[in-house]
This record gives sequence, C-alpha cells and structure tokens, in this order.
Amino acid sequence: MFQSFEASSNPDQGPPRLAALRVAMADLGLDGFIIPRADAHQGEYVAPCDARLEWLTGFTGSAGFCVALVGRAGVFVDGRYRVQVKTQVALSDFTPVDWPEVTLSDWLIDALPAGGVIGYNPWLHTIDEIDRARALLTPKGITLRPGPNLIDPLWSERPSAPAATFSVYPLSHAGVAHTDKMARLAADLRKSGQVAAVITLPDSIAWLLNIRGADIDRNPVPQAFALLNSDGTCDLFCRPGKAVALGDHLGTGVRVHPDTEFLPAVSALTGSVRIDPKTCPDIVVSALAKASVARDGDPCVLPKARKNPTEIAGMRAAHLRDAAAMVRFLHWLDDTAPKGGLTEIDVVTALEGFRRQSNALLDISFETICGAGEHGAIMHYRVTDGSNRAVNPGDLLVVDSGGQYLDGTTDITRTIAIGPVGVDERACYTRVLQGMIAISRARFPKGVAGQHLDTLARFPLWSAGMDFDHGTGHGVGVYLCVHEGPQRISRLSDVPLDPGMILSNEPGYYRNGAFGIRIENLIVVRDAPPLPGGDAHRQMRDFETLTYVPLDRRLIDLSLLSGPEKDWIDSYHALTLTLVGPLVDGSDLDWLVAVCAPL
Amino acid sequence: MFQSFEASSNPDQGPPRLAALRVAMADLGLDGFIIPRADAHQGEYVAPCDARLEWLTGFTGSAGFCVALVGRAGVFVDGRYRVQVKTQVALSDFTPVDWPEVTLSDWLIDALPAGGVIGYNPWLHTIDEIDRARALLTPKGITLRPGPNLIDPLWSERPSAPAATFSVYPLSHAGVAHTDKMARLAADLRKSGQVAAVITLPDSIAWLLNIRGADIDRNPVPQAFALLNSDGTCDLFCRPGKAVALGDHLGTGVRVHPDTEFLPAVSALTGSVRIDPKTCPDIVVSALAKASVARDGDPCVLPKARKNPTEIAGMRAAHLRDAAAMVRFLHWLDDTAPKGGLTEIDVVTALEGFRRQSNALLDISFETICGAGEHGAIMHYRVTDGSNRAVNPGDLLVVDSGGQYLDGTTDITRTIAIGPVGVDERACYTRVLQGMIAISRARFPKGVAGQHLDTLARFPLWSAGMDFDHGTGHGVGVYLCVHEGPQRISRLSDVPLDPGMILSNEPGYYRNGAFGIRIENLIVVRDAPPLPGGDAHRQMRDFETLTYVPLDRRLIDLSLLSGPEKDWIDSYHALTLTLVGPLVDGSDLDWLVAVCAPL
Repeated sequence: MFQSFEASSNPDQGPPRLAALRVAMADLGLDGFIIPRADAHQGEYVAPCDARLEWLTGFTGSAGFCVALVGRAGVFVDGRYRVQVKTQVALSDFTPVDWPEVTLSDWLIDALPAGGVIGYNPWLHTIDEIDRARALLTPKGITLRPGPNLIDPLWSERPSAPAATFSVYPLSHAGVAHTDKMARLAADLRKSGQVAAVITLPDSIAWLLNIRGADIDRNPVPQAFALLNSDGTCDLFCRPGKAVALGDHLGTGVRVHPDTEFLPAVSALTGSVRIDPKTCPDIVVSALAKASVARDGDPCVLPKARKNPTEIAGMRAAHLRDAAAMVRFLHWLDDTAPKGGLTEIDVVTALEGFRRQSNALLDISFETICGAGEHGAIMHYRVTDGSNRAVNPGDLLVVDSGGQYLDGTTDITRTIAIGPVGVDERACYTRVLQGMIAISRARFPKGVAGQHLDTLARFPLWSAGMDFDHGTGHGVGVYLCVHEGPQRISRLSDVPLDPGMILSNEPGYYRNGAFGIRIENLIVVRDAPPLPGGDAHRQMRDFETLTYVPLDRRLIDLSLLSGPEKDWIDSYHALTLTLVGPLVDGSDLDWLVAVCAPL
Repeated sequence: MFQSFEASSNPDQGPPRLAALRVAMADLGLDGFIIPRADAHQGEYVAPCDARLEWLTGFTGSAGFCVALVGRAGVFVDGRYRVQVKTQVALSDFTPVDWPEVTLSDWLIDALPAGGVIGYNPWLHTIDEIDRARALLTPKGITLRPGPNLIDPLWSERPSAPAATFSVYPLSHAGVAHTDKMARLAADLRKSGQVAAVITLPDSIAWLLNIRGADIDRNPVPQAFALLNSDGTCDLFCRPGKAVALGDHLGTGVRVHPDTEFLPAVSALTGSVRIDPKTCPDIVVSALAKASVARDGDPCVLPKARKNPTEIAGMRAAHLRDAAAMVRFLHWLDDTAPKGGLTEIDVVTALEGFRRQSNALLDISFETICGAGEHGAIMHYRVTDGSNRAVNPGDLLVVDSGGQYLDGTTDITRTIAIGPVGVDERACYTRVLQGMIAISRARFPKGVAGQHLDTLARFPLWSAGMDFDHGTGHGVGVYLCVHEGPQRISRLSDVPLDPGMILSNEPGYYRNGAFGIRIENLIVVRDAPPLPGGDAHRQMRDFETLTYVPLDRRLIDLSLLSGPEKDWIDSYHALTLTLVGPLVDGSDLDWLVAVCAPL
C-alpha cells in the first residue's frame, strides 16, 4: 500500500524545538529565522529529511512556512490548511497566519522594529522569493541575511537522504534521445549568447537526461542539479553513488560530479548564464559573481511541456490501463457502497488494490482524495484515521486519484452517487459536467491560453450563480510530476496552449458542509484539421481526451443538456466501451456495457 | 450632412513637401524626423490643423506615422491600411512599412548607422512611446532628440486651430457635480502623497469638469490640459477665449489659464506628480524636473468608465431615440434596396437623415461603415466617391454607425440581407449572432475581465473553424468618445468589468472578397441579483442591453440555435417592440411588429 492514513503530526514536539532554535538564532545575532516547507528543488513533495517545517511545528500541509522571532512564531498557511494547522501546532507557541493575504513582508514589518535581522538558508528559498521580500523590507530597515541552516544541527534523529539510485528512462518511452535534447537546447543557448543554463528542477533534469529517480514519494524525479553547457555537454551533480545504475546511458557528454561540487562549478562560470529566478535557490545568484545572470527561465520547461508522439502514445496506454482499474473499482463501489458499511479509507484501499492488479503500478501519483458527503466539499481533503467517515446511501462521493506507470502518469476524478441522491446534487453535477464537456469540445486558434478557455468550464455554473475556487486544469508530466507547468487552464495563465501539452480538465462545485462535485479527465492539445467551410488560413487546435472512464449517468439531469452535449456524452461512453471493454471481462464488462449505453 | 465622401488625398503633394522637410532637418543636423498622426492629446481624431501626416504624405488613415530620413521615408501603417496607403502616397518617395510587425526601432536600426540622430516633437509623442524606442535605439548608438515641430513652419495654408468655445455639460446629464469629482480625486491624490495630477486627455477633462467642446469632429471634447491639485482645485489651460461660454459654471475652484502657461506651470511643480505615461506628451516628463514623477496613470480614466445612474439613464434614452431612427432606416432599406439602384453612399446619406429627424443629433459618433458584398469584409471600410458600390440583391450589407446626442453616444451594427442570400451567409450570420447572444447573457463573478469573456463571443465560430480578427468590444463614452478605455472585451484586456462600464458587443465574420458580417449592441455591466440556489456569498455581474433594434430574422438559421438562444432572440424582439414601438408609427410600426414576432 502506497497511501497511509496516519496523522504523523504531534503538536507537543514544537515548543522545545522552537526554544532550541531561538538559542541558535541568538548565537548568530538573528532576530528571526524563516523555515520553509521547500527543499532546494522547490518540488511539491519533500523527502522526510527535508520536512523541517513539520519537524519544527507539527504542520504537515504541502505548502507554507514558519517565521520564528524571539517573542512569537508565525505559521503561514493558505486557505486549504486554515483548519488543519490549528489541530497540528501548539497554539501556545505558534500563531497561524492567513497567507498569502498576509505576506511575509507585511508580517515582519508589523512585528519587527527597523534594524531587525532575519536569517534564512539560501538553498531553500528561490531568487524571486528573496528579491521580492527584500525589496519591501529594505526600505523599512529590516535585513534578510543568508546563512546556515539552523534546523538540521538541532534535528537529532533526522532521516538520512534518500538512497535509491537513479534509473534509465528508456528511449522507447522518452521518444527523443537525451543527447538530441541537449544538442537542441545548447543551440538555443548559443543563439542567446549564453554559456550555460543552471537547472535545479529535478523533473527538468529527468526529462533532459531521460532518467528517473526514487528520492521523493509520488514524483519519480532524481534529486540533482545540472549545468547544461552551450557546447552540448552537461554536468550532473548528485550525491555519490546515485548514478551508478545508469551504466553508460549518460554517455561521454554528461559528466557526473558529487553534489558538493555544484556550487564551486557555478562560481567558476563566466559569461552569460541562464537561470530561472522563480525556482532557482537564492544561493545560486550569489555564486554567479563572475558571470552575468540571464533570468530567462529553465530552458527545459517548455519543450518538456510539449510532449512528443511517443510520450503521448505512452499516456494513452497508461490511461487505458488505469481506466480498466477504475472500471473494476466503480463496479465494485456500485455493488458494495449502497449496502452501507464502507468508509472512505476502505474506498481508497480498494482503489489502490484495483490499480495494483495491473502489475504495472509504480506508485500512486498523489494521495487519493476521497471525500463523502460534506468531506467532498473540502477541495484537498485527505482522509486519515482521525477524519475517516462512513460512506452512506444518499452521499455524493468525490474520488480524485492517479497512478504512476512507466509509460505515463494519470489523474482522474469521478463523483459517484451512493444510492439515490437529491435533485439539487444532480443539477449541480450536470452543470459541472457541462463545463467539462465545453473544454473537451473546445476548438480554438493558435495563441489562445488557459485564461481564455477557463470561462468555458465555468459558464454553466456562472449562469446559475455558482462558481468554484480553483483553477480548471493543470499540466501533467509523463511518468513525472502530476502537477507540471507552465500551461494551466486558469484565469491567470497566459501561456499559449501548444500541441502536445497535457492538461487536466476538472471543473467542480463545492457546497460547504453539504457536498462536493468534481469531474476530471486529462486532455492533450493537438493541431485540429481544417473544417470544410472554415477559414483555411487559420491554425486551429483542439483537445484529444486521454481519460476514458464512465461518467455517473444517475447524476445527469438530461433536461439541462443541449443536443451537442448529450451527443458528446453518448460518443464518449461509446468510445469508452470500445477502448476499455477489451481490458475487462465478466461482470465488470457487463457493468461497463450497461453504464455506457446511450442516455 | 456630417459625413463626407470625398477622398481628400493627393499623392502628388508629398514629394515637394518631403524635400522641404529635409532642408529643415539638415539645418538642425538631423538624420531623420518623425511625423506622427497624433496631436498633443493622443485622441483618435485630429483637427485639420494637426493633420501633419496627411499634409506630408497624403495618407489619411486614422493611425500611423512617417519617418523621413535623408535618403528614404517610411510610412508606417497597420493591417487596416496596407492597401489604402499605396493609393494615397507617392511611392516614388514614400515606402509603406508593415507596422507594428516592423517597429520604429527595428526600421531605424536597419536604416541608420550608429551615430544617427532622429528628431521628434515632444508634444506629439507619449512618454512610453519615446522611452520604449530610446531603450532599443540607445544601445545601437542612435539618438532620439526632442526639438521643434518641423512641419508647421513649412505648412503655408495650415488651417487655424478650432475656434468653437467649450460648453457646459449640464448636471442633469452628468449626474455628479464637477466639484464633487474633483474633491474625490483630490482625496485619492492626498492618500498617495501626490501634489497634483497632469491631465492631457480631453475626454478626461470633459468628464472631470462637466464640459464639452467642439474642437474635433465626432468627439465632443475640449482641447485643453489640466492640473488637478491635491487641495481639490484645478488649473485649466486652453487657447484664450475657449472658456468664455462656460459662465460661472467652473466656479472658483477652477482657474483658467492660456495654454501657453501649461508648461511653465508643470515646470513649477515640486513633490510627487501623477502622470499617465501611456498618453502624456513626452515634453511633460522633461518639464517635471523639480518633481518626482508617479507613473500611476490618468486618475479620471476608471471613475469615468464606471458610469453613474444618471449617465446610464441618459444612454438608455439616447439608445431608444437612436433605435427609432434605425427602425425607420431598416424599414426604408427593406422597401427600397431589393428593387436595386441604391449605392452605399445612398444608404449612409439616408441613415444620417433618419437620425437627424429626431432633431437631437449633434454629430455622428464616427464615419459610418457601410459595406455591401465584398466591401463588408473590409473591417474599417469607409465609402468614398471612388469606392462607392451598388447595393445589389443577394448582397449582405454591413452598416456600423452611431450618433452623438446630449444624453449619450450610440454605436450599432446591423447586417442586412438584400433580397435572398446564400446558405453559407446565413450559417455564418447565425454563428456570429450566437456569439453576440452569449456575451449578452453572460453572468460572471466580480474580477472577471474582458479577456475571460472574449472567448464566449468566438466559440460558435471557432467550433466551425472560423474566427474574426478584431476585439469583441470596446468601451463607449457618454456624449464623449465612441472608443473609450480602459475596459474592453478582448483577449488582451485584464481590466475587471465593474458595474457601470459600457461596452460594445460586436462579434463579426469576414470572408475576404465575398462578404462580411458584424452584429453590435451596446451593453452595460451591472450587479446581478443572487439567484435562488446560487452561491449567496458570490458577487456576480451581468449585462443590461442598451441597444434595441431588430436583428435580421431572414439571416437566422434556426436549426443551429439552442433553446435558450432562440428564447433570448424572442424576448429581445419582444422588448424591442415594447420599448421602440411607441416611438414609431404607421407603416414603420407595422414593419416593426412583423420583424419582432417570435421566430
């Protein structure tokens, strides 16, 4: 079982550790110290040895930070974690802060007199983060001072760094040789007059070198740094021994060094060096003293986002395999849940079991969100032994989950009626579905970005005075991170949607204390062929759907649907039966045939 | 008759004038000189005395500029004017340049060696324009040098500046006293620690002081500059005598000065002074030598855009008056055009005549666009004696026009079938109409901007592989400019749509060489009341329609419409009959009743 349901948090651990930290601060003459949740690679997940925020405060959420001052300590958490933080930290010593409404700078300006000095570890904060805070704090006489990590020396039973070695990601799945990727990006560097790019994102390194790692749960990325040089070679920096299993995969163009040599190598660079200030550790910019810094971003991000045909074929195969597991799971749920007696944990456990039956599941792609009734309205709910709830007839059940397979990463949400549900729930479900269909059917010209399509997913809800408070879709990697940039379907995203970009399409609706709804398929942008009678000179794009799993027909209010919407559902179900039917049998197939019948 | 159909351009005038300009350039040691189309107020229209670009080159378009070098002269025009410019300038001496694809800087860097010096008149270019060009040219060793206007001394028969005096815009139409507006904006200045705002946009001054002018055709704005001071007073700078007809309207809080005192007054300012770098003449920033410059924009722009209830009521009345004229016009057109013999000029003349019958028409709000058949596909077509075309049975006719009334400004487009038209035209018309309806019906949360709604207007076209190459909507003033910022419905507009903002809603479709379609209503943003069953905590907005004029039912392909779309058209027509029916009579009323029947 990948997923666990333990709540590892213990509020009592915090106060003595905070006291020890304050002694260390005083030794260095600091008025405060910032403890982020991030590691040096700024990923969504961190290894146990990097869970410093949790160690100090008890807070286990996936984002946030603590600022320890002499007389107070703020724990900054976003809207998802306002309730959770209060149960996890000792409120006698830690004060939750509503972030990002209150920024680090606002809070420090309020808490500190001019002359205050705040320490931070420059490996754990990005350049942009520090620049932004410093620009606001300097005029107020508050100094941000880089310095050593004050937590690790206090952490007596700190887990050791992940030991697993890197593995080769085969060309049959990657589609393009890493040497070709390096050559192409090096040509771009030469064109821009840059001598090298500093790469600190593990998924960029994974993509660039066609390797994977097992350093972090859920995200099969290698913990490493890299310098991509304009001559087409690459220097890879990692803990000794991590690369031994790669054999001669990397070739002579990639030199492997111990991670301790990364900073000296950066310091030796001269000329124009490309970095990504949004993700690169602050320490890198100080190390580049002899170079001129080009803040053009990580050169891997866009080419990685535009998947090649091999990667897309892998994603199709992974999604059909995952769909077969989902069909068996949904059939089981339909048979079992209405009788009562199931809990959310039972559902999560069963779902992982169905996925494991494929013998291809390498990990889940994130902690399954499984919320019944009012838990469904908590957008990022994670069931624990403490929160576990019965799944009762009359409930809507939201199940948002995914798998990591060698050929692809999946992410799917279905909302399921447990027995008969109310009229209101069905109307809301239908509106969410209409938004999901509108994105699925969208055809749009080159240059259109997520901010232009986001409205299509919301319009049916807006028309009824409703909305949902998250983006409509995020990028997804190929056997990489389930959340991958830069493209999104969101009111704020101006990244044009290019062919090969994979996105989630997941509108929802959340009625606090009552029920939640979310429906999610993955889709991939492709060139749309010209239509007869259309403008021949326009380059248009549309989406291919990757996810084929039945939608809960019992929740669809047919009277709200237009003809084309109903047609879309019927042809989606027909295609689901065609594609997934051959992968299931017996009563699972009977069930699939029944739920894929025309509406 | 406001509109004229003469083509005033004469290509022969250009070469001798260009030669004279080059002598003047040589006297000042300049390698080039920039001649913009703009005056010091950066409006869409210029007075005859400011039509320097036309005087020098013959080009009469509404945007563009000329750069005269010693050996060549480029006339920079955008996509609308690529064909027209070639017929208006002497191609022996002037080279059309595709702008903005080729920028001023690109072209100068290509044309000039390092050390080149280009002159410009700093009254006629904005701060942003010059800053942007200078940032690109300075590294290449090219200097932009402010200096005197070289055209005016050469222009022997230059028209004199407009003589018409300013007039009071009555409180009964303005809704808020100018003293209240000044007090409110001055409070904002004080809050920002600013001593004054420099206001150079005539429509901002018109709105702020509740005055109008007759200096520019189509736009009833006063040519003036103003300083709004943080003590709530205002200094108004205009040509002597312009303000005499205002009587004691302005009051003691507004001091009137000759325009020649504007620059000295700016130069005397100390402290933080607010300017709008996007519209303010470059000379102002040099004059502010003793002040610190706050580039926060024109403080009138947003409050002006959010119309008050009196202004909205005025717009409603103006639109119904205008609708009655449109109904008489459309009825006349239906009776007359299918017999043949009409020309585009006949149609424009008749339409202005119907508008004049109200005895309330003060001007047209822009040159009527009236394009039959293939002329309809030219988005900004303006009929002249030279281009005039017969309106034939089988044509689609696009008529985009508007009026200036004391209580409001109108802008409406209808596309009319002249006799029976093809299946293709009807399908395209229906898709354009579906986009127009989608915007009209939109209901959206606070914070949504034009870039989020623009997609709704295009989606029915995109689905058929089509699109149109202009924005969906622009802001509109109240007895002010028909194009008014900052809000727009456009892929690029991130200005949130606030209650009171008026917009055009005008999707179109253009098939080059064949036909054009555009349908345009004006709409105003309002707070939408909560819907039963909707989210009570969400602030939602929707649009009230201002324009009530029948849509051509002969062009609607019913089979493409959804139920709600058909319902929208039927209720729009029913409301049109209710609101406009009482304003027409006899056979006009009979016609209106017939065309407003349910589909």
